[in-house]
Amino acid sequence: MRIEVINTGTELLLGKVVNTHACYFGQELFKLGLRVQRQVTVPDGEDIRDALVDAFPRTDVILITGGLGPTSDDVTREIVAAMLGLDLQLREDVLEEVNAFFKVRGLTPNQSNDRQAMVPDGAEVLSNPYGTAPGLYLPAVDDRGSPHLFLLPGPPRELKPMFKDLVFPKLAGFRGGNNEAGVWHNFKIYGVGESVIAGQLDPLFKADESLEIGYCARLGEVDVRLIGQADAVENAAERVREIYRQDIIAESEEPIEKILVDMLSGRDETVATAESCTGGEIASSITNVSGSSRALLSGFVTYSNESKTAILGVDPELIRKHGAVSRPVVEEMAEGCLRVSGADHAVAVSGIAGPDGGSEEKPVGTVYLGIASRGGETFVKRCFSPSDRISFKRRITRLALDLLRRRLRGFPLN
Amino acid sequence: MRIEVINTGTELLLGKVVNTHACYFGQELFKLGLRVQRQVTVPDGEDIRDALVDAFPRTDVILITGGLGPTSDDVTREIVAAMLGLDLQLREDVLEEVNAFFKVRGLTPNQSNDRQAMVPDGAEVLSNPYGTAPGLYLPAVDDRGSPHLFLLPGPPRELKPMFKDLVFPKLAGFRGGNNEAGVWHNFKIYGVGESVIAGQLDPLFKADESLEIGYCARLGEVDVRLIGQADAVENAAERVREIYRQDIIAESEEPIEKILVDMLSGRDETVATAESCTGGEIASSITNVSGSSRALLSGFVTYSNESKTAILGVDPELIRKHGAVSRPVVEEMAEGCLRVSGADHAVAVSGIAGPDGGSEEKPVGTVYLGIASRGGETFVKRCFSPSDRISFKRRITRLALDLLRRRLRGFPLN
Repeated sequence: MRIEVINTGTELLLGKVVNTHACYFGQELFKLGLRVQRQVTVPDGEDIRDALVDAFPRTDVILITGGLGPTSDDVTREIVAAMLGLDLQLREDVLEEVNAFFKVRGLTPNQSNDRQAMVPDGAEVLSNPYGTAPGLYLPAVDDRGSPHLFLLPGPPRELKPMFKDLVFPKLAGFRGGNNEAGVWHNFKIYGVGESVIAGQLDPLFKADESLEIGYCARLGEVDVRLIGQADAVENAAERVREIYRQDIIAESEEPIEKILVDMLSGRDETVATAESCTGGEIASSITNVSGSSRALLSGFVTYSNESKTAILGVDPELIRKHGAVSRPVVEEMAEGCLRVSGADHAVAVSGIAGPDGGSEEKPVGTVYLGIASRGGETFVKRCFSPSDRISFKRRITRLALDLLRRRLRGFPLN
Repeated sequence: MRIEVINTGTELLLGKVVNTHACYFGQELFKLGLRVQRQVTVPDGEDIRDALVDAFPRTDVILITGGLGPTSDDVTREIVAAMLGLDLQLREDVLEEVNAFFKVRGLTPNQSNDRQAMVPDGAEVLSNPYGTAPGLYLPAVDDRGSPHLFLLPGPPRELKPMFKDLVFPKLAGFRGGNNEAGVWHNFKIYGVGESVIAGQLDPLFKADESLEIGYCARLGEVDVRLIGQADAVENAAERVREIYRQDIIAESEEPIEKILVDMLSGRDETVATAESCTGGEIASSITNVSGSSRALLSGFVTYSNESKTAILGVDPELIRKHGAVSRPVVEEMAEGCLRVSGADHAVAVSGIAGPDGGSEEKPVGTVYLGIASRGGETFVKRCFSPSDRISFKRRITRLALDLLRRRLRGFPLN
């Protein structure tokens, strides 16, 4: 099944907005063992016609984003209808939904919004609870040589739920047609490299032709996907669980921050952070999660040596003797953070983000991560992850969050 | 001048990596008054041929990224040479540069790296100080109907300096050909909306046909670009400076974090942060800047009410009476942060990120931002910026950084 993506939006080509749709679709389709074969961005307006003409003969499915709004350069709906020779009809039920969206927000819909309730003959309306422009699905018609077309809204907060609830199941259905009783299962694994996982799992499952296995690595996390017949997937999933029990953070899509906030809230426990090289990114990641105020008590960015001493009570003699990036200092940071915050757990990090500040003994990329818990032993480990400053901070933040997860689960921390 | 972008990379289509090239090119070309008219992503391998065949007849310039490395699916160089009927020659000077890159890093180059030193006849080599694959520039040749082709490496840390140093000046030159003595000037403006700026500047400069003005807004920042004949641009820039003197953060590309770190270091002053709703993102933004340890002393994420009292000394009675999101509490947070940290300036924020926690008097999106300075008056302002949690945090972080900038510059804070 050949799938292409067409993004419309002048703002994407002007560099006002990073195009995250292509990446999102790639990740979602990966779960189905499908992939995007080509992605094109065109400006708002007539250019989409050429892109569609190009894509029609070679595709089975086209995912189109943007151009469904009320302004004059939103023309996706009209162009697609014209290309397929379909009339557009004003659908009263859709108009009511569009107008209801305004009324709930105390706004008055104007005439130009009516366009959003125009539906081509034979199209299925994909309702949009997060915006005014509904999506549209036009099934493939062999006679006219048109593939399956999904017209989706541009804003990610509208597109993602619509894709997940209404488009993904259809794509899974198309795929099911090729692959009798195909099911899929996804694991998120932390702390083991993609090549190590592939080296362990590929030989195990190679013999089984009813099973397909795929990997996708990003920033210390590896997604493992199993696709195939229900029995085969279930058996394989059990094997994966046995091997990576302690390293699987989720068999769902939840990010680790959300999992930690839920675990902590569920146990009525709290965490605090003491950050040097990550500069607040660990606390900031946790507070990206709605409801994190139940889990994060406080955070300290002790960037200077003085602040490590003044705020967390780290012995200045230790810093002088071992340096701020050292096992004993991070141990005292974690324990000081636990004491000062009153939290149940404290995560601490100190490292050399670079580009300056490295030495032979502790090159740029060296970091110590520590965790202290009320009534538990304090644990500190050394890691090495040289890269640019921003990636370093992001990767070390992931490692610190995983350390907390392992402590909460009672897994070994090494 | 019609410009298109072709990105090659299976990882972009699998969703392993977000494609930031398209956005980067858009922003860079904007400075020249140029824009990307279409962007296409194809997998590694042969697909790039079709994309080039499509693009040739309608473009003046194609920017191609990726596929220049040593592995078997890196075929951009070979496909372009074959399409243009050009022989590839091994260039000894380029090979030396490639091998030198390995030797500096204590690595041994292997045979497959030789491919990276193959250069099509008539191509200009764009040297790559940050990686092994050099870029290539193939000038347009009318007879064969080929536009200007730039072959650039995939990794952003290699691509960006190469684009800036070697490609941008050529594009500026092409543009100069159409626009006698064209120069450009860029402003970054904070705290004034795009439509307000356009409403003020458009009428001022409308009459002058030798001048082109453009706007680009993102997260509270507006870029204003002037393009035209040198005299006209200089005069217009002077007018823009008069009008927005206090709102211009830079006439360069530096982000506000970097400007603040430089200003503070230059004055030998320091800052500390007291964050509630931004959860550490202000401190994290500052620490993204190399050298920020000279400017940021410490940061406090006082997420819970208890931590505001215990760490920053906020009177619990104030919290009870006015709520944690209130003028008096943020005032005490800022002053407490100044006292506890020993910094010269302290920035404090408390707000309602949502989706829960809003009230009629203080709906989701309400925030108080404060600044306290050694020997200066403490200032607190109320803002309202309702949006999703992540965008809210990001936007409020920008507002807090701008408050510090205005204080350092001695500008009014309102």
